[in-house]
Amino acid sequence: MYTELTLADIVREHRRSRPHRTAVVDGKWHLTYGEFDARTDLLAGALAVAGAGHGSRILWIGENSYRVLELLVAAAKIGAILCPANWRQSADELRFIVADLEPAVVLWDPSVSSIEPESAPEDGSRWVRCTESEDDEYESWLSSSSAQYPAEEVEERDPVLLLYTAAFDGRPNGALLSHRALIAHGAVLAIQRQIEEGFVFLDSGPMFHVGTMMFATATLMTGGTNVVLRRFDPEIACELIERERCQGAMLFPAMISQLVETNSEGRYDLSSLRFAPADPAWNTMVTADTSPWGRSEYGYGQTEVAGMLTYHALGIDGQGSHGRPSPLTQVRIVDPEDRDVPDGQVGEIVARGSHLLSGYFNRPELDTEKFRGGWYHTGDLGRREADGTLSFIGPKLRMIKSGGENIYPAEVERALLAHPDISAAAVIGRPDDDWGQAVHAVVVIRAKSEEAEPDLIAHVRRLIASYKKPRSIDFVDAIPMRGFVPDYDALDSGFGGGGYPGS
Amino acid sequence: MYTELTLADIVREHRRSRPHRTAVVDGKWHLTYGEFDARTDLLAGALAVAGAGHGSRILWIGENSYRVLELLVAAAKIGAILCPANWRQSADELRFIVADLEPAVVLWDPSVSSIEPESAPEDGSRWVRCTESEDDEYESWLSSSSAQYPAEEVEERDPVLLLYTAAFDGRPNGALLSHRALIAHGAVLAIQRQIEEGFVFLDSGPMFHVGTMMFATATLMTGGTNVVLRRFDPEIACELIERERCQGAMLFPAMISQLVETNSEGRYDLSSLRFAPADPAWNTMVTADTSPWGRSEYGYGQTEVAGMLTYHALGIDGQGSHGRPSPLTQVRIVDPEDRDVPDGQVGEIVARGSHLLSGYFNRPELDTEKFRGGWYHTGDLGRREADGTLSFIGPKLRMIKSGGENIYPAEVERALLAHPDISAAAVIGRPDDDWGQAVHAVVVIRAKSEEAEPDLIAHVRRLIASYKKPRSIDFVDAIPMRGFVPDYDALDSGFGGGGYPGS
Repeated sequence: MYTELTLADIVREHRRSRPHRTAVVDGKWHLTYGEFDARTDLLAGALAVAGAGHGSRILWIGENSYRVLELLVAAAKIGAILCPANWRQSADELRFIVADLEPAVVLWDPSVSSIEPESAPEDGSRWVRCTESEDDEYESWLSSSSAQYPAEEVEERDPVLLLYTAAFDGRPNGALLSHRALIAHGAVLAIQRQIEEGFVFLDSGPMFHVGTMMFATATLMTGGTNVVLRRFDPEIACELIERERCQGAMLFPAMISQLVETNSEGRYDLSSLRFAPADPAWNTMVTADTSPWGRSEYGYGQTEVAGMLTYHALGIDGQGSHGRPSPLTQVRIVDPEDRDVPDGQVGEIVARGSHLLSGYFNRPELDTEKFRGGWYHTGDLGRREADGTLSFIGPKLRMIKSGGENIYPAEVERALLAHPDISAAAVIGRPDDDWGQAVHAVVVIRAKSEEAEPDLIAHVRRLIASYKKPRSIDFVDAIPMRGFVPDYDALDSGFGGGGYPGS
Repeated sequence: MYTELTLADIVREHRRSRPHRTAVVDGKWHLTYGEFDARTDLLAGALAVAGAGHGSRILWIGENSYRVLELLVAAAKIGAILCPANWRQSADELRFIVADLEPAVVLWDPSVSSIEPESAPEDGSRWVRCTESEDDEYESWLSSSSAQYPAEEVEERDPVLLLYTAAFDGRPNGALLSHRALIAHGAVLAIQRQIEEGFVFLDSGPMFHVGTMMFATATLMTGGTNVVLRRFDPEIACELIERERCQGAMLFPAMISQLVETNSEGRYDLSSLRFAPADPAWNTMVTADTSPWGRSEYGYGQTEVAGMLTYHALGIDGQGSHGRPSPLTQVRIVDPEDRDVPDGQVGEIVARGSHLLSGYFNRPELDTEKFRGGWYHTGDLGRREADGTLSFIGPKLRMIKSGGENIYPAEVERALLAHPDISAAAVIGRPDDDWGQAVHAVVVIRAKSEEAEPDLIAHVRRLIASYKKPRSIDFVDAIPMRGFVPDYDALDSGFGGGGYPGS
C-alpha cells in the first residue's frame, strides 16, 4: 500500500533528504543518515543470515548504545522485533526473557549481562558479543554482511519494538509496539515538545524504557540527532550537551540535581537545552521553557501506549491532574461492566488510538482480556472531571464489592493520604455477611489520638462517597510492600481480607 | 480495530475532553465541542434518513460556513464523503459535478449557486436549501432529526473528503482523502505551525480548497477553534481576528495588503495573529513569526496529498527551492520508466506516505496510471539536490524525446525565464528526422537584438544540459494560455510541434 509507512521507510527517506545530517552520536561514532541507512542495510543482512526474519525477535542485553538504534531500524527492514532488555536484571529474570522470547539473535555485553550464551537454552539462537574492546563481534559481524535481505513486505502494523512491562504480580509481559504506533506517538510528541528539523536529543535515560525510547524514535522520525549516553554520568552528560548542542534530554529531578552540582562553576554551556524550569541555578544554566509543556512536562503514560496517553500541558489550568488525551487517542472511564461512568466518578481508564500496543507477545488470553470490547484496558483508575480533563488515581489492581457498589482501594487510599497525619495507607476488603465485603484500612499514622479512627473515617467521608469509607482501621508501623505498591496478599492474610468479586 | 481513528472519533473525544471549548464560530453561531458533536449526530441522522450511507457523496454548493465543518463530521459518522464544490463555477461545470458524483444529498445556497434542483438529473437526490433567511431548510432539517444512524463500521482508510482538482486538460477529477490522510496531514501541519491546544484559526480562504481545509482539519483535530469567514472581507476579517484572538489565518499577499490598508489607523488589535513577516506595517500589526516557518511558509503541495508534500522550512538554508518532505511521506524523483534519476537531474516527483489520496472518485484507469509501482505520480517535475533538499520545477504535462533523451519543456522554460529579457516562454518538440524530435522555443522578449536567438540558446546551455537547449526560437507578442499554463495544443499547431513519445 502506498500509504504504509515503516521506520525503515522513514530512515530511507532521511538518506535521500538529509544524507549528510548526523543521525547518531555515541563516543567515537558520528553517523550521518546516509551512513546510518547503509549500516542498517548491512545489519539487516547479517540478521537475515543469522536466521532472523519476519516476526523474529532480536534481544539486546547491554547498556545504551548506537547499536540499539541500528538494531531497531535493521529489525524494521526485515519485519523483525527488537527487545532491548533491562540489563540490570538478575540471571533468573534474563533467563525468563530468553525463554519467553525465543530470540533468533541475542546481542549481549558480557561486562553487564548476568547471563552468558552457555546458560541459555539450546535453541539455536545466534549470540553476538558486544564490547568496546578487541573481542567485540558486532562490528566485524556487520562489516562482513552483504546487505542482502529478503524484500519481504513489512507492514506498518507489524510490531517492531517489544518492551517488557513491570509485573506487579507474576511474570512480565512483552508489549508489542508497531511501526504505526511509534510513528504516531512520535508525531504527537513532536507537536508537544517542538521536535523539529535539526532537533538534538540526549538519550540520557535507559533505552530499555519507553520514556527514553519515545524521544529517541520521535527524534529519528523527524530527522534529528540522537546523542547516546551509555549510562548516566553528570560530567559526560554536561560535556555532550555542550558539544552536541542538545536541545532535549531525558532527565529526572535527581539527575538535574547532579547536573546543577557538576556545573556549579559554570564550566559547561548548557544553554542549548530547552527544559522545564526547576531550581534557580538550573534555570540560569538551560533555556527554561515557558510554554505549557515547560510549566508541566508530565502526563499519564504506559509502555503499552508507546509513551504518553495524556499530557498535563493539554489542560494545564483544568480541573484534572493529568490533562487531556494525546490528539491521536480516545479515552473513556468505565465500570467493571465496561459502561461509561459519569464524570467525577472513578473507573478504569480504557483507550483506543493510533499509538496503542498491538498486543502482548505470546499472551493470547491476556490480549483477550485487555482488549475486550475493542478498547485497551489500562488496569489503571482515572476520573473525568467536569471540564473534560482527566485525573489519574492509581493502579486498579483489585476491587472491593460492598453492598453491590464497586470500591477501588486506590481511591480510598488517596483520600486517607490526603490527611496530614497519615504517611502510608492500604485498603482491603473483609468478608461481610450483610454487605458482601466491608472496607478495612491499614494505615501508618504520625501521632495517634484516641479519636483517630472515627476522625479518619469522617475525613474520608468528606472527600468521597460514604459507601467507600473504611468501616474499620488498623494502625501499623509499616505497610508491607511489593515494589511500589502495597502487598495486598500479605495484607489480606494479616488483616482478614477476602471475599473479593470474582475470587 | 482499536487502533483505527476517524474524524468522528476525534470529535467524540473532544466532546469528552473539552466539552465547553469553542469548536466553531460563524456569525451568530458559537458552538462548543459538546454542541458540535451533538449537532453532527443530528445531521448524520438526517443524512441517513435522506438515503446517505457508507460511501455516499454529500455535495455542498455554497460559501464558507460552519455547515461545511458539520457536514464533514456528519459524513465521517456514517462513512459518507463530503464534496465542498467551488460555488463560483458555471452551471455547466456544476452540472458536470452533480452528474459525476451522483450525490445522495445536495446542500445548496440559491444566492450563489448557478444551478437549481430542477436543472439536476432526476436521480432521487435530496436537495436542501441553505440560506440565512426564513426559507432556510438546513436548521429545520437538522432539528427534526432523531440523531439515529446506522452504527456501521467506518474505517480510517475510508474517504471522507472529496475535492475536485484543476483539470489542465479535460474533465476535473475528484481526489478522495481518507480520515487517515486528513489526520496524518493535520498532525504534520500541527508540528510545523505549532497548532496546539487552544489554537484559533480564521478560515479566510475558500473551504472548497485544500489550502484552507488542511488548516481547518488540523485545528479541528487538535481541539482548536475554527472561525469561519463566509467570503473574504478585510473589515470583517479584522473584526474577527481581534474578537476571537485568531492565531492563524489563510492569507495571500493581496489579502494581507487589504488588511494592512483597512487597519492603517490601528483600529483593530491583530497581535494575536502569528504570521510570516511581510511589509513593515504588517509586521507591527501582527506577531511576526521568526521560526523557519515564519521565514518561509511555502512548500510544494497538491490536493492529492491533502495539502503539502514538502515544506521549505524543512531545509530553508538548503540548495533546493522547496525544502524537504513532510515527515510522514517519502519522495523519489524518477524517469518515465520509474527508475530513480541521479541527484541534480529533473524527473517526475512520485510519493508514498500516510497523507496521500486514496485515489480518484470513479476513475479506475487514472488510478492505475497514477499509482503504478505503488507510488503516486504527481505529474510534476522536481529535482533532488546534492544536500537532499528538493526543487519543484513545474508541471510535467508532456515530454519531448530527442536523441533518445527525455526533455521536459518546463525545465527548458525555467532556464529561458531566468534570462532578464524574457517575460514568457513555452517549449515544444518538432518532428526531426535525425533526432526524433527537436526542441523549439516560443518566447516573449522585452527588446529583441539581432543576436537574440544564439544568445538565448547559449544562455540555456549554460544552465542545463546541451541536449535540452532549443534548436530554434520563435519570438511572439504573447504565449497562448490555458488557465495558468501554456496552451501546448495551440502551440503545436501554430509552430509545427509533434512527434511526441507515445503519441
